[in-house]
Amino acid sequence: MLKDLWLVGIGTGSPAHMTLEGMQALRDASVILLPLKGDDKEALAALRYGIINATGTQAKIVTFDYPLRDPSLPYGPRVTTWHDEIARRWSAALATVEVAGPVALLVWGDPSLYDSTLRIAERLDPRPTIHVVPGITAIQALTAAHAIPLNTVNGPVKITTGRQLRDHGWPEGEETLVVLLDGACSFRALDPAGLKIWWGAYLGSAEQILCAGKLAEVADEITARRGEARAQHGWIMDTYLLRRDHQLGD
Amino acid sequence: MLKDLWLVGIGTGSPAHMTLEGMQALRDASVILLPLKGDDKEALAALRYGIINATGTQAKIVTFDYPLRDPSLPYGPRVTTWHDEIARRWSAALATVEVAGPVALLVWGDPSLYDSTLRIAERLDPRPTIHVVPGITAIQALTAAHAIPLNTVNGPVKITTGRQLRDHGWPEGEETLVVLLDGACSFRALDPAGLKIWWGAYLGSAEQILCAGKLAEVADEITARRGEARAQHGWIMDTYLLRRDHQLGD
Ligand SMILES: C[S@@+](CC[C@H](N)C(=O)[O-])C[C@H]1O[C@@H](n2cnc3c(N)ncnc32)[C@H](O)[C@@H]1O
Ligand SMILES: C[S@@+](CC[C@H](N)C(=O)[O-])C[C@H]1O[C@@H](n2cnc3c(N)ncnc32)[C@H](O)[C@@H]1O
Repeated sequence: MLKDLWLVGIGTGSPAHMTLEGMQALRDASVILLPLKGDDKEALAALRYGIINATGTQAKIVTFDYPLRDPSLPYGPRVTTWHDEIARRWSAALATVEVAGPVALLVWGDPSLYDSTLRIAERLDPRPTIHVVPGITAIQALTAAHAIPLNTVNGPVKITTGRQLRDHGWPEGEETLVVLLDGACSFRALDPAGLKIWWGAYLGSAEQILCAGKLAEVADEITARRGEARAQHGWIMDTYLLRRDHQLGD
Repeated sequence: MLKDLWLVGIGTGSPAHMTLEGMQALRDASVILLPLKGDDKEALAALRYGIINATGTQAKIVTFDYPLRDPSLPYGPRVTTWHDEIARRWSAALATVEVAGPVALLVWGDPSLYDSTLRIAERLDPRPTIHVVPGITAIQALTAAHAIPLNTVNGPVKITTGRQLRDHGWPEGEETLVVLLDGACSFRALDPAGLKIWWGAYLGSAEQILCAGKLAEVADEITARRGEARAQHGWIMDTYLLRRDHQLGD
């Protein structure tokens, strides 16, 4: 009987991102629910096993496969149906073992940021108590790697996606933008005048790549390096921060 | 001779927020630079010592006092002068000991978020290599405590301050706002229609207080509880997330 579900943020690429709380939650788990294939890169699966082993947990590992998304559905229902099906697969997987205590799920970065695990967990019936353990996000891995502040002095920050940037351009009045979920170097759609970029891929991992400078000067270099790295690894995860230049002087 | 300066994010109120990387950085430090008084709460100082002791570090602890800000200066120069003076005090404090290896500074939450440590470090002359260890922010402690996503599905998020909210109102077109640095319950300045709030104080600590609901229904309760808690503890740190209601259904 699943009573307590722990969503454990594991950071982005480095096992050293793990928090003491996250390590403890995995140790305390009776069962760890792990995706077997689909929606996942092999390198990341290895990292996840490394973290589980490092905790010394005695938890039973129960695996599930991600379903495919139904391409015939429009975006909204496609996501909803997919989440419903994942929740069903979690329940089915858990039905194969004795659940004597907390169940844990490992989540990349922080469970709150552009991640569907919380929304899937809310579909479980009966609904367990959901506990969230925060983890280091790709945004923090980016600013740490570049040793830069996220915000200007007391200035606001907008977190957004590649699609938003392509569809709506630079949001009026913003000085700092952080972009995730961008498969298309959407910064190229912007007028680069007055903009600086801090870009990072595979953040936190040994393969980490960084590039920073005036957008006008480094946009081509980033696009090229992204393409090469993606070809080499077969996948890429990247994040970047854009800042209006006139605000950098504070 | 200060060659490597580590800014270590220690999370917000819970020693269990510490990452393995943060623990290691404190263990590897030859000197830890610690504020003795000013700009700090006693409860937080105790937490900081707890973390240092938990790492088992052999580092020498070197303390400094925060200078006072000069109230006769306008805001910009006041902050700049203050940062200059803090950098001088760090250097003076470090001159009293042999610095044989890395120097570490503990930073609340994540060093990138509304924190001046990075800007102060950049003033050091000669300038050391600055290393940043990310830490769990108040924003993540908030969303984890409420077990809520930061963003709606693929939606943008704006991080801002109480002052920005008071001066500029609800930013046009935004659906999710996170507010830090608000000493004045600035959500009261908003038209509450269609807004939900998730509020948290002393996040991560044993004293954590949470409140959530429709802004129209809980604004008074939050204001009252904030006032009482502040009177009881002598200080308060709080953060909240606001969301336009019509977006909650996804
Ligand atoms: C589905 S979101 C998950 C974000 C995650 N929950 C977090 O807190 O970072 C995936 C996006 O996060 C960013 N990302 C995640 N891991 C990354 C990494 N190691 N390096 C660079 N970007 C990363 C990329 O923008 C990617 O498109
Ligand atoms: C100077 S900023 C530092 C933020 C910090 N660097 C971080 O990453 O969370 C201080 C603001 O952070 C928020 N904050 C920090 N610690 C908090 C806590 N334990 N509970 C609630 N809010 C907190 C409050 O909004 C406070 O005004």
